[in-house]
Amino acid sequence: MLLEKLNWRYATKKMDPARKVPQEKVDRIIEAARLAPTSSGLQPFEVLVITNPELKEKIRAVAWNQAQVTDSSHLLVFAAWDNYTAERINRMFDLVNEERGFTSEGWEAYRQKLLETYVPRSAEINFEHAARQAYIGFGLALTAAAFEEVDATPMEGFDAAALDEILGLREKGLRSVTIMPIGYRDAANDWLVNLKKVRRDRKNFVTEIA
Amino acid sequence: MLLEKLNWRYATKKMDPARKVPQEKVDRIIEAARLAPTSSGLQPFEVLVITNPELKEKIRAVAWNQAQVTDSSHLLVFAAWDNYTAERINRMFDLVNEERGFTSEGWEAYRQKLLETYVPRSAEINFEHAARQAYIGFGLALTAAAFEEVDATPMEGFDAAALDEILGLREKGLRSVTIMPIGYRDAANDWLVNLKKVRRDRKNFVTEIA
Repeated sequence: MLLEKLNWRYATKKMDPARKVPQEKVDRIIEAARLAPTSSGLQPFEVLVITNPELKEKIRAVAWNQAQVTDSSHLLVFAAWDNYTAERINRMFDLVNEERGFTSEGWEAYRQKLLETYVPRSAEINFEHAARQAYIGFGLALTAAAFEEVDATPMEGFDAAALDEILGLREKGLRSVTIMPIGYRDAANDWLVNLKKVRRDRKNFVTEIA
Repeated sequence: MLLEKLNWRYATKKMDPARKVPQEKVDRIIEAARLAPTSSGLQPFEVLVITNPELKEKIRAVAWNQAQVTDSSHLLVFAAWDNYTAERINRMFDLVNEERGFTSEGWEAYRQKLLETYVPRSAEINFEHAARQAYIGFGLALTAAAFEEVDATPMEGFDAAALDEILGLREKGLRSVTIMPIGYRDAANDWLVNLKKVRRDRKNFVTEIA
């Protein structure tokens, strides 16, 4: 079932600008990213969902002019925390305590360990760590799109600093890491749609040690 | 369907060492990682599947003594390329040409662009980029485990340099980034199994710009 969906999806090169993705499908795609597991459950990323046409035009200009950015129904931007701060870590631990209705000694010791490990580390190392977590959510959102029969294009090809500027991300302590136009393929005009999906074969990908 | 599976899964804290995951389930979990989309389709990571008990003991010793490492049925290790090299990039482009039975001018220009961009870059930057791709596969493998009703624990808590040494990864141009014990929960002894899954609410995770 999952494998069928992963085989169905592909990095859509041409989208039909006339077709819009229903809101409930967009919601489920975002929900998959929200449910994604992340290191210590900190969820160090956010998702921006852009439908504004002028904004999509501006973003296309800093994304190698890729047409999916504007032809898409919705453009998702995955933005990772620029750093781990005590405030951010505490907010998540406080939320967990609130939701679970209790605290425990082990859990509070774990909070202290994270504060001691993450807060003194450089912003760059922390951002790289946060970015990796964002990629888990990115992968799950792509998978969720396939389950909704919604096409998507995973993209790293954009000027992240320029995109951060356009969206005002740095002021929010965020840095864009990936973008994902979602919509519907224009199969007649997509050069990739009928080409075989290529992956290294299993023996060049997996090593079993029994 | 997907969201149900994502809600079902959790970072299993106690696994039943007596229960083994059938090979066809392991195969489908690995297949999800193999089908994961990666930047330019380079698949810059590999997966090691470890069932050897002595090896699992050694790995547990460099993984904060976490019991899931040895109690698991199979231990998956995700290892990213330590660098992008011309050989690695060319191998993937050659494979695509072979599988699709043709070459094209645009595709060959894209190969040159990647060679010019990636090969001169520092190994560290390239490794960080490769590691992010590995996290997509890691997320998809976790999701696939949930579809198989197999429990899994996503783990970053290990000494990567020590693990690389144990598995001889550096000699293969690989560096471990995450590990994933898979198996079956020992629900009676798992403190996390009945606790509520906590995520930031949607309004603190998503921004819509219409």
